[in-house]
Amino acid sequence: MPQRIHYTSDLATTLEGVLNALSPRGVVVITDSNVLQAVGPLCPLLTSQPCLALDPGEENKDLSHLTAAWDWLEDQHATRDTVVVNIGGGMVTDLGGLAAATFKRGLRMVNVPTTVLGAVDAAVGGKTGINYHGLKNEIGAFAMATDVVVSATPLATLPRQQVLSGFAEMLKHGLLSSADELHRLLEFDPYPIDPEGWLPRLQTSIEVKQRIVESDPHEHGARRALNLGHTVGHAIESHALSQGHPVPHGYAVAWGLVTECVLSHLRAGFPSSLLYPLASTVRSLYGPPPITCDDYDTLLALMRHDKKSHHGEINCTLLTSPGTPLLDQDIPATELPPALDILRDLIQ
Amino acid sequence: MPQRIHYTSDLATTLEGVLNALSPRGVVVITDSNVLQAVGPLCPLLTSQPCLALDPGEENKDLSHLTAAWDWLEDQHATRDTVVVNIGGGMVTDLGGLAAATFKRGLRMVNVPTTVLGAVDAAVGGKTGINYHGLKNEIGAFAMATDVVVSATPLATLPRQQVLSGFAEMLKHGLLSSADELHRLLEFDPYPIDPEGWLPRLQTSIEVKQRIVESDPHEHGARRALNLGHTVGHAIESHALSQGHPVPHGYAVAWGLVTECVLSHLRAGFPSSLLYPLASTVRSLYGPPPITCDDYDTLLALMRHDKKSHHGEINCTLLTSPGTPLLDQDIPATELPPALDILRDLIQ
Repeated sequence: MPQRIHYTSDLATTLEGVLNALSPRGVVVITDSNVLQAVGPLCPLLTSQPCLALDPGEENKDLSHLTAAWDWLEDQHATRDTVVVNIGGGMVTDLGGLAAATFKRGLRMVNVPTTVLGAVDAAVGGKTGINYHGLKNEIGAFAMATDVVVSATPLATLPRQQVLSGFAEMLKHGLLSSADELHRLLEFDPYPIDPEGWLPRLQTSIEVKQRIVESDPHEHGARRALNLGHTVGHAIESHALSQGHPVPHGYAVAWGLVTECVLSHLRAGFPSSLLYPLASTVRSLYGPPPITCDDYDTLLALMRHDKKSHHGEINCTLLTSPGTPLLDQDIPATELPPALDILRDLIQ
Repeated sequence: MPQRIHYTSDLATTLEGVLNALSPRGVVVITDSNVLQAVGPLCPLLTSQPCLALDPGEENKDLSHLTAAWDWLEDQHATRDTVVVNIGGGMVTDLGGLAAATFKRGLRMVNVPTTVLGAVDAAVGGKTGINYHGLKNEIGAFAMATDVVVSATPLATLPRQQVLSGFAEMLKHGLLSSADELHRLLEFDPYPIDPEGWLPRLQTSIEVKQRIVESDPHEHGARRALNLGHTVGHAIESHALSQGHPVPHGYAVAWGLVTECVLSHLRAGFPSSLLYPLASTVRSLYGPPPITCDDYDTLLALMRHDKKSHHGEINCTLLTSPGTPLLDQDIPATELPPALDILRDLIQ
């Protein structure tokens, strides 16, 4: 069953309609304490139904919070006819989603993303998970929310850095969509959030992801296109973290996108007429990447240990043009230093 | 993707072919220490590949053994290209299946059942799970093994009680199939196991289950037919356990099948010409149920708390005839004592 995605400027009313259509015997809400405070006034469900407020933050997306969610579902006497509503960012939809997917072998769920990244990535497509032994999403399941309710209104309360971090994934979706959509995003002013202007950009971005996910729900092929920017991005993110100067995930993805578009230009003819404006937008929104040529060896080692790598090669998604990905490309290690040089030249 | 079920008298060769066809980058085996000892000589894979031998028994189908399986998969550097082979009874295919289904959001798996119940029930159909806070299969997922390799050879080492316990589920499948298949089973001598005679009976039984599961993978409708015998059976099993005289699950199901066929006769015209031979077979294989009329109140209370019951009514699957189930029937509590009286009259 494909996911139903509802785009709305009236979150409370739309969510009420979605729940009525599911005819549940009970509704329970999983959120985190930050969301409860920030989004509570927009979403009466947070106070009208039993609500579990998790400790916020990726570092709490772990087994102990998963078992806490299971225990709470038991306390609420949740049955196979209960609907779980996950209201929050990626941490909530990932962990609440896994709790719902595994409690009594799966309760129905509805996702209400409250961050940009949650809306365009985590809440849609059925990936759930927790971190385990420090490994990201090491334990998880593919389990689709029946419905996702997307509104830009809750996003308007987010700080700039978080908005921009999520916007990087929208740039990625633009690159996977078309030159037209990429241009629209490069001309778009993402911050501060104007909910009316944002909703159609969210919709286009989610539709790109949804189209890819529907063609490959369990990540055996086409879905790997969504890794665009992430091989290099993850390496930059991990390296910055290990240096004690963490960068937001989306910032690292933005720099990764530029680098992988450089590689796409060199190896697959991705047009420089798109590469330059992309780099210019990334420079103005995210600033320069925190790397020097002294970091290249470490970055290369991290890329070789990426989970997409099967036997130590460097594996990327490349693009011949916007909307035309080349999956599972093995990149010779010798090509990375020049590409990173160009990244640093373009964004300094 | 439907499950591929392979029926074979040469387990080792068939399993080898199945694994070759999956082209895994690695194969790991999950089993239990009893199976390792009993089935090892039949199945070279148990010694040729990395193998996790769980502590045997339903009481170990818990979160601590699930996390042990996750940890072991990490130690083996399992990736999304690894295939997990679960070799064992229901405990192994349930827990190993859940571990595989949730590790990195799902590895491919192959099930090799080594018990009758495992073959005709647990290994087929995609239900995985662990017990949690004493609740059976409270945490789990629907995740299909790509292949199930069924051989009667490993079953020949099982003790009589365990064979008969599994055979009760085959009687259930016969009742859900046709009068012809039911007659074949009632005339079949299940113990001691003759692998050649058993393999076609296993195949027919599994095909009944598979047909029902394929029409309803997530237990929203038709799959509830498989609850036949289990509302009354679970109550007898729980009561016997609480009295300190546990009975094998299948024995309780056999008595439950007779009772629910009595109800089916009284309420839905299930023919007495089939009820009597069924009761006669159940009497000769399983003996009388360990209940008196003093136990009826307790049994009724247990049935009201069954997970199929939504608001305290007694919910059963009934049959108008073999192969024609009536799902989700609410039975007035007043009808149970006469049906249990008839059960005890038929089987004494």
